[in-house]
Amino acid sequence: MNVISFEIFSIIIALASFIFAAWLYKWVQKQPSSNEKIAEVGKLIRQGAATFLNKEYRVLTRFAGVAAVLILIFLPSPIWSGNIIKNITMAISYIAGTIFSAIAGKIGIEVATIANVKAAEAAKKGIKPSFMTGFRGGAVMGMAVVGSSLLGVAAVLLITNNTTALLGFSFGASSLALFAKAGGGIYTKTADISADLVGKVELGIPEDDPRNPAVIADNVGDNVGDVAGMGADLFDSNVASMSAALVMAVSLDRIANSEVNASMVFCYAALGLLASIIGVGMARIGKKGDPTKALNNSTYVTTGVYIVLTLIATYVFEFSWRIWGACVVGLIVGVIIGIATDYFTNDTKKPVQYVARASKSGPAFTILSGISYAMLSVLPAMIGIAFASLMAYKLCEPIGDGYAMFGISMSAVGMLSIVGMIISNDAYGPIVDNARGLAEMGNLGDDVLQITDELDSAGNTVKAVTKGFAIAAAGLTVIALLGAFMSEVNTAAAELNLPGLEGFDIINPVVFFGLLIGAAIPLVFSAMLMLGVDRNAQRMVAEIHRQFKEIVGLKEGKPGVNPEYDKSIEIATTGAIRELIPAGLMAIVATLVVGFVGGVQAIGGFLAGNIVSGLLFALFMSNAGGRWDNSKKYVEAGNEGGKGSDAHKSAVVGDTVGDPFKDTAGPSINTQITVVSLVASLLSTLFLTLSIF
Amino acid sequence: MNVISFEIFSIIIALASFIFAAWLYKWVQKQPSSNEKIAEVGKLIRQGAATFLNKEYRVLTRFAGVAAVLILIFLPSPIWSGNIIKNITMAISYIAGTIFSAIAGKIGIEVATIANVKAAEAAKKGIKPSFMTGFRGGAVMGMAVVGSSLLGVAAVLLITNNTTALLGFSFGASSLALFAKAGGGIYTKTADISADLVGKVELGIPEDDPRNPAVIADNVGDNVGDVAGMGADLFDSNVASMSAALVMAVSLDRIANSEVNASMVFCYAALGLLASIIGVGMARIGKKGDPTKALNNSTYVTTGVYIVLTLIATYVFEFSWRIWGACVVGLIVGVIIGIATDYFTNDTKKPVQYVARASKSGPAFTILSGISYAMLSVLPAMIGIAFASLMAYKLCEPIGDGYAMFGISMSAVGMLSIVGMIISNDAYGPIVDNARGLAEMGNLGDDVLQITDELDSAGNTVKAVTKGFAIAAAGLTVIALLGAFMSEVNTAAAELNLPGLEGFDIINPVVFFGLLIGAAIPLVFSAMLMLGVDRNAQRMVAEIHRQFKEIVGLKEGKPGVNPEYDKSIEIATTGAIRELIPAGLMAIVATLVVGFVGGVQAIGGFLAGNIVSGLLFALFMSNAGGRWDNSKKYVEAGNEGGKGSDAHKSAVVGDTVGDPFKDTAGPSINTQITVVSLVASLLSTLFLTLSIF
Repeated sequence: MNVISFEIFSIIIALASFIFAAWLYKWVQKQPSSNEKIAEVGKLIRQGAATFLNKEYRVLTRFAGVAAVLILIFLPSPIWSGNIIKNITMAISYIAGTIFSAIAGKIGIEVATIANVKAAEAAKKGIKPSFMTGFRGGAVMGMAVVGSSLLGVAAVLLITNNTTALLGFSFGASSLALFAKAGGGIYTKTADISADLVGKVELGIPEDDPRNPAVIADNVGDNVGDVAGMGADLFDSNVASMSAALVMAVSLDRIANSEVNASMVFCYAALGLLASIIGVGMARIGKKGDPTKALNNSTYVTTGVYIVLTLIATYVFEFSWRIWGACVVGLIVGVIIGIATDYFTNDTKKPVQYVARASKSGPAFTILSGISYAMLSVLPAMIGIAFASLMAYKLCEPIGDGYAMFGISMSAVGMLSIVGMIISNDAYGPIVDNARGLAEMGNLGDDVLQITDELDSAGNTVKAVTKGFAIAAAGLTVIALLGAFMSEVNTAAAELNLPGLEGFDIINPVVFFGLLIGAAIPLVFSAMLMLGVDRNAQRMVAEIHRQFKEIVGLKEGKPGVNPEYDKSIEIATTGAIRELIPAGLMAIVATLVVGFVGGVQAIGGFLAGNIVSGLLFALFMSNAGGRWDNSKKYVEAGNEGGKGSDAHKSAVVGDTVGDPFKDTAGPSINTQITVVSLVASLLSTLFLTLSIF
Repeated sequence: MNVISFEIFSIIIALASFIFAAWLYKWVQKQPSSNEKIAEVGKLIRQGAATFLNKEYRVLTRFAGVAAVLILIFLPSPIWSGNIIKNITMAISYIAGTIFSAIAGKIGIEVATIANVKAAEAAKKGIKPSFMTGFRGGAVMGMAVVGSSLLGVAAVLLITNNTTALLGFSFGASSLALFAKAGGGIYTKTADISADLVGKVELGIPEDDPRNPAVIADNVGDNVGDVAGMGADLFDSNVASMSAALVMAVSLDRIANSEVNASMVFCYAALGLLASIIGVGMARIGKKGDPTKALNNSTYVTTGVYIVLTLIATYVFEFSWRIWGACVVGLIVGVIIGIATDYFTNDTKKPVQYVARASKSGPAFTILSGISYAMLSVLPAMIGIAFASLMAYKLCEPIGDGYAMFGISMSAVGMLSIVGMIISNDAYGPIVDNARGLAEMGNLGDDVLQITDELDSAGNTVKAVTKGFAIAAAGLTVIALLGAFMSEVNTAAAELNLPGLEGFDIINPVVFFGLLIGAAIPLVFSAMLMLGVDRNAQRMVAEIHRQFKEIVGLKEGKPGVNPEYDKSIEIATTGAIRELIPAGLMAIVATLVVGFVGGVQAIGGFLAGNIVSGLLFALFMSNAGGRWDNSKKYVEAGNEGGKGSDAHKSAVVGDTVGDPFKDTAGPSINTQITVVSLVASLLSTLFLTLSIF
């Protein structure tokens, strides 16, 4: 078995996905648009998103520059003690990781801010064309993200033939994801909260009033957080899962003197992308069809196609059936976790309705019942991840030493195999959400609004499923990264003639020391982000006040007088990045402190604690936020007193609390875990040689 | 070194503490009381508390009976395969554990419901006599709890000479703590919420209006939760820490063919109680003194006395200085964690004031800022526990194999050594809180109210410190219990000629499987308790409605017409126990499932996950609740708009959310962890021989 042929196969499939994405992009662009008002607002959102991305990428360039120099000097081993070529390779791989992810994000935002306008227009002709526009717009992002991650991983390994460089590439992707996801999360809630505080509360003007200087920033936020952020997050998870699997595969292959394991990783990953292409291509909706069903069906089709394709490949190339089993277990568990998440956030189910009913007794009961159900909701996902990793282990253990952990990493690859489809579904959400807003601003009439409402609601339902899926996949990935960390430490130890690691014993207090501190980090990180939103919103409110005061005629709505939308976007962006950096540094510095105090043993515990508490809080916060959002919508749909009732007021409080939970802190925890795991792996040699205990 | 002499020394000190407690009890009883109104309400509270305890103990007797029969049949090994005498010893030890704890709780409630009346009266003569009455009333509880735990542990080991029986005794204490703490927690919030919902919200009558059928239940709640519950909780922690240390000490002594380690455990524990007796005896307050200072000073005195006493003992008996160091590190870290907790909940510090200021923007911001700071607040305690265990490990590792873990258990013993003093301070709180309410009802005038207010506020401040201390101590204890679990497994394995455990490797997916599921349990447990409060409050509200409807003249306040206070207390009690049992069983069943699926390895991970996430959530919920409570009080003191302002309304929402956080779920998590740890240790033989994987 020759791994190079599978690398080339992966690159070909990746290129095919780009061609498919380009075709989808053209298709979306070809859709008609005529309404001037919609085009104008659409253009402002588009420009605003570009302002955000440009600003973010500018800061990121500086950050990545500094990181690249540090990598050049210190990694994989200090430049004065090691091989300079290795350090250069590492630094370049790191930069490549940031660039690949940035390009995928840019493409996603580009198409999303066109597709929203087109989907609004298309709704005039019925649900079918509008759905197809939203979905295909999202699919461009899906294809771009998965294509570029596969291309990047294959190219880096093909060129460098060095798995540590792969971790460098993965770290680049994580750095970007940290900015895109956590930075975007702070940005979007800053805009949302300050637009509401000044607009609705102080001045009493409607939600989307164009006089409000923050209104475009708010609309931009959806795209920034849900399209670019989520894309970067899943790019990161996808690259990390492949990298972790490859680190172990190459090390196992070296022992067995074969290339079968690495070949398998590329083969399965490429087939996953192929299955997503087929799934996206086949997605259809009837003339009066149900969009939720259409989205879920595409997921099931992709899952089925993937299982069949890998079945054939495993047979043809004589791969191990046990590892195939681990891969399929991961995929199926992922789908089940998605469905379980749906139960806790779907407004036809008990938890959402219970919270809505509790809201009648006041906001305290909205919060209490919401938090209680969020605590319950972590259980299925934790059991699912635990079960998937145990099954993968038990399936692959008999193959030989080291295969158990490799099985887990393949289970993560399996869970993420259909990520192209997942991203398509997820990016569909903000596109049709924006389309709904545009249809309202363009006065397209009640029929159109009804259609876009239906499409939007499908987006919300599917989002819960994909979010559960994304967290679970990240969970398995970081378990695999723990294995990759041990693999890296042992490689380094062998080179330095030091004793290697056999594992991380919980009963060893150095490990337990790491475990306790690692577990506290996601809470501190989340708290810093949420307090950051608060501070940033205060700055933004001051800017809105300034504009209303200084721009003559703005408050009165004098024709031709526009607020300085760009200024607001600029302030929210700068502030978001300023608030993000201390939180990101805190996580990295904590890793360094634990590593230099307790060495690799403490880091093993640190990563485990970080993963476990990170998963708990990511699930807790995402599910709580999703449920409060849907409880509010459920009340607004006329239940428990409907709009304007006491229950509604309480439900709004719940929704406001839930917003930074589900859009800022919750989904950023994934990225925090990956960043920390990769920092640990990259610094393993230093921790091995320089720790106090 | 003869361990029996130290056991007898412990028993003598324990008996001395009883005599001291009896003297304090008499002293409190001797204080004058003349006001009829106060005496009447005091009697109702006293009877109500008795009703609760009787009901609880009745259910507990049945529960303990079933558990004792199961223990008799299955533990330490099934009756048909093992030694029947061992099983009988185990069952009797278990029952003794429940009885000792129950008696201590009963004594505490008895004196607390006398001391509240006396303290209210004494306030007429100034702050000094009132403070002394409150403090000495609390000290009765402190002496009773620590005396009976030391007596029980020493007696069980003296009689049985079997450390597994000690775990049985500890499990008995935990069972009772589960009922007292979690059951009491549900009870107190049920009464509180339903009294408010019907009284203040529906009927608009004042908080302590005697027409409200739930008003006595509400007053009883303070005693039930904070006196009996907290006492049972610390009884449990204290017994568990001594048991864990003794399990390891006896096993180390067996290898070394000495008795020095077990002797040290008893010596240090007994000196801790002696130091507390001295500290309590020396507690004084100046005529116009500061009660907070007086309480904190007694803690510092006790700490100092303890260090000096152990220093002398270590010198005289030639104990290991390293182990002494571990013990002192634990104690000092405990005090530091208490101080850090104070920072996050004290209204002169930034977090409380920040939350109060955020409340001006609405309840959502009260919740968000409160949760953010609660997330930050876990860090110092986690670092403190991590640091204490690492230091203890590093100090004791050089002594020999197995001493590192024993060092950690001694660090827990050290942290808990001054628990007699801690309980005295903690029980002081509800006594003076009740005294304040009684002074108001008895119209004792503004001067008296000012004094009781000052005493009450000192109680609140000190409570935050003792709560942080209690959680930290429980954390170290359960780490030690993890060591005890391994020790038990290895003893069992040696008897069965099976391979023993060397540790729990995180990288082993069976361990990780346990880790993930164990981490989810505290969340599910908390959620079940909080939803239980909600359901129970609904039952209670229905009962209040019934009484207002059926008792003629009650609503109008016709003289001589009283509500059926007892009925309300009965309903709240029954409901609390009904809601508690599924939550407790869930935790136990999860342990059984994980143990029988993954064996002892999975249980190791399960316990570690449970400890880590349990600590996080216990700290998170306790600190959030404490801060919201104090933010509300801070606003009510006239800040940020004062009473009746928007900020106040928001702060009340925060306080309502915080109530079940800090009084129901948060503090019950400790007990859940101990119960699960002990179940695991007790079933170790079964898990070793009967698991699937």
